[in-house]
Amino acid sequence: MVVLGLAGSLRKRSLNRALLDAVAAAAPEGVSLTVFDLRPLPMYDGDLDVDGSVPLSVQALRDAVAHADAVWLATPEYNHSIPAVTKNALDWASRPAFRSPFVDKPVGLLGAAPGIGATLRAQEHLKLVLLGMHAQVHPTPHTVPRAGALCEERDGQLVLVDAEARARLGRWARGFVDWSRDRSGHPRRDPS
Amino acid sequence: MVVLGLAGSLRKRSLNRALLDAVAAAAPEGVSLTVFDLRPLPMYDGDLDVDGSVPLSVQALRDAVAHADAVWLATPEYNHSIPAVTKNALDWASRPAFRSPFVDKPVGLLGAAPGIGATLRAQEHLKLVLLGMHAQVHPTPHTVPRAGALCEERDGQLVLVDAEARARLGRWARGFVDWSRDRSGHPRRDPS
Repeated sequence: MVVLGLAGSLRKRSLNRALLDAVAAAAPEGVSLTVFDLRPLPMYDGDLDVDGSVPLSVQALRDAVAHADAVWLATPEYNHSIPAVTKNALDWASRPAFRSPFVDKPVGLLGAAPGIGATLRAQEHLKLVLLGMHAQVHPTPHTVPRAGALCEERDGQLVLVDAEARARLGRWARGFVDWSRDRSGHPRRDPS
Repeated sequence: MVVLGLAGSLRKRSLNRALLDAVAAAAPEGVSLTVFDLRPLPMYDGDLDVDGSVPLSVQALRDAVAHADAVWLATPEYNHSIPAVTKNALDWASRPAFRSPFVDKPVGLLGAAPGIGATLRAQEHLKLVLLGMHAQVHPTPHTVPRAGALCEERDGQLVLVDAEARARLGRWARGFVDWSRDRSGHPRRDPS
């Protein structure tokens, strides 16, 4: 299973980038995750969104989504909702409407937060957005509160080192894989 | 009353930019609206969000919000929620958290859409976001569905020319002014 990973933060020491690396390591055999860098994307502009001549970085994102079996979206929560970085990627990749690469694509939601607030409010909004895009949304988002305390810094980036957090991620990933193979919309085991 | 206008679309022929111009013209005497161009803002990046050295365009936005008596936010809806352009402006202007220029600022929500879908779902999410930022949210968003048919193109930009739509905008603006003077949170008349 080829999974595309998107991290909704541009920060160098991003907790959510660390989360993607950790879930890649904890995922069951047969899952390969590639992270797509969202930094080169321009801000969404309808005037640039012309079939056949979108910016190169936008076409690259759409192609990467199209070629993946699933997308894992690891994103912080800003102001009780979806960060601009994350929404910008989705706004670009959701087009052309109703025939975008996200149609029927299985999507898993993950989030890491420095405090106890977790990322559940952003993930509830993301469910509505992704259903609006006709994606298949995994019903159980994964969230890691107090994630800073579970990470160590290595070479200027954060690494999620906490064994229990990594084990939980592994169970979530197995649940996602089962669910996306089943495609009934009902996970076959509790993925938390 | 000095009002800052933000349009959540970068498109040249933006319906929401036309909506801001129309509400400025329809507003009661004593209201002066200045539109802040969101195009120069970089994508939110926590590494650039350092007290005293944020990007110039970000400082200009924060200063403009601080100096205004109120903010009117005219934004389309993308994928059933807030467009990235709009959320990016709010993510930057919401900082530093709990002492940002949006704290206690009266905010009015407007939206224009080409179709019948209107912009109400994005506005519900904006209410949650703005309350999370400790802004004072006017409880009655204004929405203009099928707005394309109510506009004419002049010099490459759209102008909302429909008399009934302009009259409704005038009533909304009066309702907003009364509400923000009252500040009880309860509008004194139906602003629709």
